[in-house]
Amino acid sequence: MSKNRILRVGLVQQHCNDDGEHNLKVSMQGVREAAAQGAKLVLLQELHLGPYFCQTEDPTVFDLAEPIPGPSTEALGALAKELGVVIVASLFERRAPGLYHNTAVVLETDGSLAGKYRKMHIPDDPGYYEKFYFTPGDLGFEPIETSVGKLGVLVCWDQWYPEAARLMALAGAEMLLYPTAIGWVEEDPVDDQKRQRDAWVISQRGHAVANGLPVLSCNRVGHEADPSGVTSGITFWGTSFVAGPQGEILAEAPVDEAVTLVTDVDLGRSESVRRMWPFLRDRRIDFYGDLTKRYRD
Amino acid sequence: MSKNRILRVGLVQQHCNDDGEHNLKVSMQGVREAAAQGAKLVLLQELHLGPYFCQTEDPTVFDLAEPIPGPSTEALGALAKELGVVIVASLFERRAPGLYHNTAVVLETDGSLAGKYRKMHIPDDPGYYEKFYFTPGDLGFEPIETSVGKLGVLVCWDQWYPEAARLMALAGAEMLLYPTAIGWVEEDPVDDQKRQRDAWVISQRGHAVANGLPVLSCNRVGHEADPSGVTSGITFWGTSFVAGPQGEILAEAPVDEAVTLVTDVDLGRSESVRRMWPFLRDRRIDFYGDLTKRYRD
Repeated sequence: MSKNRILRVGLVQQHCNDDGEHNLKVSMQGVREAAAQGAKLVLLQELHLGPYFCQTEDPTVFDLAEPIPGPSTEALGALAKELGVVIVASLFERRAPGLYHNTAVVLETDGSLAGKYRKMHIPDDPGYYEKFYFTPGDLGFEPIETSVGKLGVLVCWDQWYPEAARLMALAGAEMLLYPTAIGWVEEDPVDDQKRQRDAWVISQRGHAVANGLPVLSCNRVGHEADPSGVTSGITFWGTSFVAGPQGEILAEAPVDEAVTLVTDVDLGRSESVRRMWPFLRDRRIDFYGDLTKRYRD
Repeated sequence: MSKNRILRVGLVQQHCNDDGEHNLKVSMQGVREAAAQGAKLVLLQELHLGPYFCQTEDPTVFDLAEPIPGPSTEALGALAKELGVVIVASLFERRAPGLYHNTAVVLETDGSLAGKYRKMHIPDDPGYYEKFYFTPGDLGFEPIETSVGKLGVLVCWDQWYPEAARLMALAGAEMLLYPTAIGWVEEDPVDDQKRQRDAWVISQRGHAVANGLPVLSCNRVGHEADPSGVTSGITFWGTSFVAGPQGEILAEAPVDEAVTLVTDVDLGRSESVRRMWPFLRDRRIDFYGDLTKRYRD
């Protein structure tokens, strides 16, 4: 068996309101809690500095975007340095006037920006009008090197795409990390809601299995009103979780409560699992060419 | 919402022994039971005509292989015609001396061979020495057109590969079908066993979610000794199941019992699910090229 390599990780599942400074404080408090419990890597949820603003299409919202590096990476970098932890945060990036991204950033223990990932798959469905706000990422699927390992950072909608997870694994990612913001419409029947949340968990646990990698997924929690008043808003379903390289659940947060979830991941287990389930060995790359087609018609 | 299109399906989860004729009779009896309950599509488990012979590498085993078409497709074709059902069976194909495949065949309601799929991903790990017996398939990932829909037939080890499921979906498959033979080593601790079986279910439910397609998986059941006596053999874990296009379990067979599992699948639900979760729309095919690499190093 390969050697144990235990990494303690923390996930900050939080409520957000309209006060950006307050939200940043809550995020930073969560990082402190995780660090106090010994976490060396802390994952924040998607767009944790504000409400999930994509429920409507409102051009004034672009005022919230900020450059990277910028004030938030500076504040979070200072915290990472102070606590000696790696932080994965999720920001609304202003790249140029009229050009914005949904971008995850990784802050290193020396306070520097280890790297960034621009969300590649952008959703657009009722209540999640992201195509208005976010230009699809152009940095591809590249893991970010850090002092705690090579991080396969992806964002939310990416979690439905096995291709994204696989490309990260093939590039040497040692774990997959998903800052995310997903929830229910209260009007949906309870069994629909259950199916949706189960599917979301299964999809990500499936990436763990297919790639023999741990998965960390940090989701928003709580109800947020629809600013337009057209719908009853979204109730984000929390359920942040950490899964091991066979998709086994190592820790899971509640559905309706803000928590800092801390657990140990054994990065050494990936190699043990892959030795017995050597999926990478048998990929039929000679027949995968059509994966780059929109449809095989 | 798109229209309902209910298809009743049957899965024959069976024990096998060394008597090929007996095993075929059991398979055919299962098909009759499913048809009597109204199933229009019946899925058999992997290599249902014999014991799972890949626990050792034994050249005399090749005597069991048969041509396709051949005696088994003839018998099963006649049954398909008699009962008016589509049958998906799994055979050890003799293509030429020294060239054998693990091949799924689809028999149409008129008794004809609708098509075949040669297992593309071939495992090889202790107790599953398949690389000795089966040449990797050379027909690619092509759905098979039938009177009950376009079938994405894959086999066992394929079930760990999101690429296979995706390629079938992109080619218009309306459901994914896995004849399979997987089980436990009794010596493994119970929590290892649980993780293995859970991972197997999650992986396939994950393909349902990622592609918005129902998944039918038919597994072998019961203990089979290792002919070499080196190990204690394999206890196949049954658990054949049918999942809907959000990965929701529609029916599941027991872990330790031979059963014919019959349930309804609504093929119309795939379009409803895909309209709200339009994963195919947002695939970043401009960045998927490296999926044809062995590794991105």
